Amino acid sequence: MNLTVKQAFEMLKEIDNILILTHRNPDGDAVGSMFALYYVLKSMGKNVGCMSDKIPDSLSFPVCKEAFEELEAEYIISTDVADAQLFTDAALNKYGDKIFLSIDHHASSKPFAENTLVDPEASAACEVICDMLIENEFPISKEIANSLYLGIATDTGCFRYSNTTAKTLSFAARLIENGADNAEINRIVFETKSLQLIRFEALAANSLRTYYDGKCAVLVITRDMYKRTGISEAETHGIAALPRQVEGVLAGIVIKERDVGKYKISIRSNEPVSAAEICEVFGGGGHKLAAGCELSGNLQSVINSVLKVTGEVLKDI
Amino acid sequence: MNLTVKQAFEMLKEIDNILILTHRNPDGDAVGSMFALYYVLKSMGKNVGCMSDKIPDSLSFPVCKEAFEELEAEYIISTDVADAQLFTDAALNKYGDKIFLSIDHHASSKPFAENTLVDPEASAACEVICDMLIENEFPISKEIANSLYLGIATDTGCFRYSNTTAKTLSFAARLIENGADNAEINRIVFETKSLQLIRFEALAANSLRTYYDGKCAVLVITRDMYKRTGISEAETHGIAALPRQVEGVLAGIVIKERDVGKYKISIRSNEPVSAAEICEVFGGGGHKLAAGCELSGNLQSVINSVLKVTGEVLKDI
Repeated sequence: MNLTVKQAFEMLKEIDNILILTHRNPDGDAVGSMFALYYVLKSMGKNVGCMSDKIPDSLSFPVCKEAFEELEAEYIISTDVADAQLFTDAALNKYGDKIFLSIDHHASSKPFAENTLVDPEASAACEVICDMLIENEFPISKEIANSLYLGIATDTGCFRYSNTTAKTLSFAARLIENGADNAEINRIVFETKSLQLIRFEALAANSLRTYYDGKCAVLVITRDMYKRTGISEAETHGIAALPRQVEGVLAGIVIKERDVGKYKISIRSNEPVSAAEICEVFGGGGHKLAAGCELSGNLQSVINSVLKVTGEVLKDI
Repeated sequence: MNLTVKQAFEMLKEIDNILILTHRNPDGDAVGSMFALYYVLKSMGKNVGCMSDKIPDSLSFPVCKEAFEELEAEYIISTDVADAQLFTDAALNKYGDKIFLSIDHHASSKPFAENTLVDPEASAACEVICDMLIENEFPISKEIANSLYLGIATDTGCFRYSNTTAKTLSFAARLIENGADNAEINRIVFETKSLQLIRFEALAANSLRTYYDGKCAVLVITRDMYKRTGISEAETHGIAALPRQVEGVLAGIVIKERDVGKYKISIRSNEPVSAAEICEVFGGGGHKLAAGCELSGNLQSVINSVLKVTGEVLKDI
């Protein structure tokens, strides 16, 4: 059953020996929600621990090492996990069918736990936890505030994205009142880049070309660019946003070389263009403003194919 | 005298035939505060107008044309102006010594008006106005909310900078409740760049070099880069932040060619390095974390001079 924040809080008070899991490749909301809950349960006097993939340095602000000490777990809680398949293999094998409570915010959240506290209106799992603490008048310590701030700030692009609501901002205000180091977290998470990433972004930006009176922008990423800048693909996901950022662009396209003759296409669009409509022509799909597909062939023929379909869609605008 | 928000509001109620001015080269807070006040006075039934430099398209969200119609002004109010020298020449000549009320948030605000409403704790002039409206329970319309949101978001880098307080975020929450189109304003202001700017930034990023075990990063901007990308210097001010963003950098240096053999140096630092300490050696100055100076010579000798002094400062860290 999907619990209210009151019910979930009552449930937490009743249990002990708790292990908290999050999804693999943890992002800011995964780390923040796991540690916020850890500090909440600690301050309730519970025996509690965390289990997680390696946490990137830039997101380690709320981490404390004791949280990862061995624990005989009786109750398993997951935070920010929309689907059991997103656990690490180790967690999935050992605990996949034993999740007592899932705290999440994804609209696509699939039921895999005995109990759920899922709020698809919330910008982040951390917003769900913050809501629960405020509704139950639980004291928010500095550690809890920092953990929750990290998750809310990262999942909203520091309050830029459309998932930022009045509630999101009023919670963030409350977290700062309770000691969250917002400026320092923002500096580490949003104002710091590796030299490799800066070089990669410059290289990729050089490939940017516009078409159809500037309504379409195409950026090409080759495997050679990763090699030349010494960066891994995983670190470069932010580049997908670049072509759509160009003034006047309605369809921003990234063509990424996956293997010889194999390309992954990511399209982000602005209203009224549908990125999904373009990608569906090639057997892909996604949301209206962000979609993807895969194409094979030589680079120029792939660019031409995608441009042709995009041109048809733009013609109707 | 510096008024309280209650006193300022009472004063606004008493006057009519009001012209609102802001500083030249208006930024988001200038435009937002001018128009927020315009809509407030309009809805009080006042005869009111605005006077301003050209407003960039990306900041024109709150603008309405009627505001610029001719007006026989009796009372002049300025918003976001820290010093009379920052008015446009036209405004300075005609109204410089006739400012009835200055609404501002700069700590460096100089007295030039009969009355002031200055709050140096506020992130933006828009935050000062928002405070006044909330304290006096004035109804915040959608137009007022959009104007105030624009100013607060731009002056805080969308809530990233250290001037963002709990009060700032709680005001922003209130503005969204009152209809501010935060996602759309953020998209236009923070997620949109000209193709020229993207090309310029890529070119500039290529020049990035690190020194002293990565504690110092230097970026060089030549006049040729402006020419090659067709961009004006004014549009590229954001680049000053780049070298300090490199992971591990304590002193981020931008060397900008102003004229043959003349260079403007901008240094931004992270704690504990003092950018001002480095710039003072060359007769410049500024704040601890952001300072500037000027040097003459050939490019390599300028780089060497700045690096030498920076190395001395870094040695003591």
